[in-house]
Amino acid sequence: MNLKPSDFQRFSRHFLVEPGRQVDIRQDFDPADTFGYSKTENAAEILQDGVELLAEYQERLYAENTRALLVVLQALDAAGKDSTIKHVMSGVNPAGCQVTSFKAPSAAELEHDFLWRCVQALPARGNIGIFNRSHYEEVLVVRVHPQFLEAQRLPRPLLGEELWPRRFRQINDFERHLVENGIEIVKIFLNVSQEKQLERQLERIDQPEKHWKFNPNDIQERQHWDAYQAAYQEVLQHTSTPWAPWYVAPADRKWFTRIAVAAIIANKLMEMDPQFPTVSPAQREEMLACRQTLLAESSAAPSR
Amino acid sequence: MNLKPSDFQRFSRHFLVEPGRQVDIRQDFDPADTFGYSKTENAAEILQDGVELLAEYQERLYAENTRALLVVLQALDAAGKDSTIKHVMSGVNPAGCQVTSFKAPSAAELEHDFLWRCVQALPARGNIGIFNRSHYEEVLVVRVHPQFLEAQRLPRPLLGEELWPRRFRQINDFERHLVENGIEIVKIFLNVSQEKQLERQLERIDQPEKHWKFNPNDIQERQHWDAYQAAYQEVLQHTSTPWAPWYVAPADRKWFTRIAVAAIIANKLMEMDPQFPTVSPAQREEMLACRQTLLAESSAAPSR
Repeated sequence: MNLKPSDFQRFSRHFLVEPGRQVDIRQDFDPADTFGYSKTENAAEILQDGVELLAEYQERLYAENTRALLVVLQALDAAGKDSTIKHVMSGVNPAGCQVTSFKAPSAAELEHDFLWRCVQALPARGNIGIFNRSHYEEVLVVRVHPQFLEAQRLPRPLLGEELWPRRFRQINDFERHLVENGIEIVKIFLNVSQEKQLERQLERIDQPEKHWKFNPNDIQERQHWDAYQAAYQEVLQHTSTPWAPWYVAPADRKWFTRIAVAAIIANKLMEMDPQFPTVSPAQREEMLACRQTLLAESSAAPSR
Repeated sequence: MNLKPSDFQRFSRHFLVEPGRQVDIRQDFDPADTFGYSKTENAAEILQDGVELLAEYQERLYAENTRALLVVLQALDAAGKDSTIKHVMSGVNPAGCQVTSFKAPSAAELEHDFLWRCVQALPARGNIGIFNRSHYEEVLVVRVHPQFLEAQRLPRPLLGEELWPRRFRQINDFERHLVENGIEIVKIFLNVSQEKQLERQLERIDQPEKHWKFNPNDIQERQHWDAYQAAYQEVLQHTSTPWAPWYVAPADRKWFTRIAVAAIIANKLMEMDPQFPTVSPAQREEMLACRQTLLAESSAAPSR
């Protein structure tokens, strides 16, 4: 099967969370959805089409050098963020693509507001930046574990339940600022089911080659499943904006997660439609003068 | 043709500048060298073997997470640094590989010593860092244009001809410090001929799709060809060390440049031989406790 650009558009629309829409995270999104496709031999081929399109558009974005694309990836443990990045982005020139994995904030990062470390990792013009986790952790893990707020040492009047809607607004304002300055944004939530997470966490224990991915804290976090689902629902409802929409990619079938993520990113790049820069008449004149210099040299006797 | 690991070792040895050896840059290295190979259809296949090996070793390095690899790429204009990075590294997971392109230093960078900005771009443990240009510009472009030193505002007693051997020593000390702390280093000079540079510079003027790569300053720099060759010869002679050796990759034939660079990097990673981490008995015990927790949950009635 060969995919056409319009297929990526269809995929992309299918997973979009329409801004302003009420979200019921348990009803609205099926983690095992495959958009009607079954895993056949050409799943790899479909993915390859997406990866090649990404590589081509990344080069044009880099040459254009006026805009950037920020891809935010969020998910619970074992949804496949790392392997999705590996399979979707290993084909793109790393000179124009940077991945930032956000861990628990350092002491130095905690001296600043919650967006500070994200600002420093933003992609430069011409680049694609991937956030593996992001500023959204501040309304997810911090919301599920409000004791983490203490280490942020916010002024006391800023605490209380108003904190969360205020952070949603701050995030929306921040993202609008970026988009209004040429940094386009796509946000993708990899939606894994509770059963599939359990299966994958057991694999990390039972399969020696996956041991290095095992972290006992992930098992602890699983106990907060419902609180995380509620927090994600709020995020999708309040921060899917016309300028920086959320997409929910089903994450129970890895082969399909990769195709969905490649399609969403590729479709965004096609919409941006970056162009190779054109040459102004003055630049053209300068080029022709340089051409004369070079040709004069090559017609002279070689220096050695 | 299928390459064996020992082939990469042969390639790599062939292009090594033995530390301490006298170098005659015009006599010793042939920019059109192809190591006896001719460009056949399977040049792409040989490169693919190298790229796959790189991707595999990058994953092991990332999992091991104790060492890093810094690859320094230096060359004159049109030797193919950018396209080599694209073809050799587009296949590696960008989550573990960062490319830094060093341009003319900014005002803020000039407030610091010449290694300062390079330190900040060093690869973190588990990562491969590519320097597209590097701290070596400080003994290349700055040596050819000593007026650039003024903007660095060095204390007056540090100026004078002693500056260059002192910088070589400082660079060697800096690199030894890195290697002694787990950051391994490979340095590659892409060696292009004067004739091939001219041909490629003309292409950027004559082929519209290459216009965006054109920079009139590159044509100016070409006038300093001999001074650059002399500066590179000194660099190879004084900074190819047992801990951070230089390799000279022939750069007149792009298909071969890519194979040579892939082989040099792959061979270094094979020497480093990164390993997936193993699990201690205490960790194993913790894993088994987590396993019990997960299994108890899955045998209980699902919560919904």
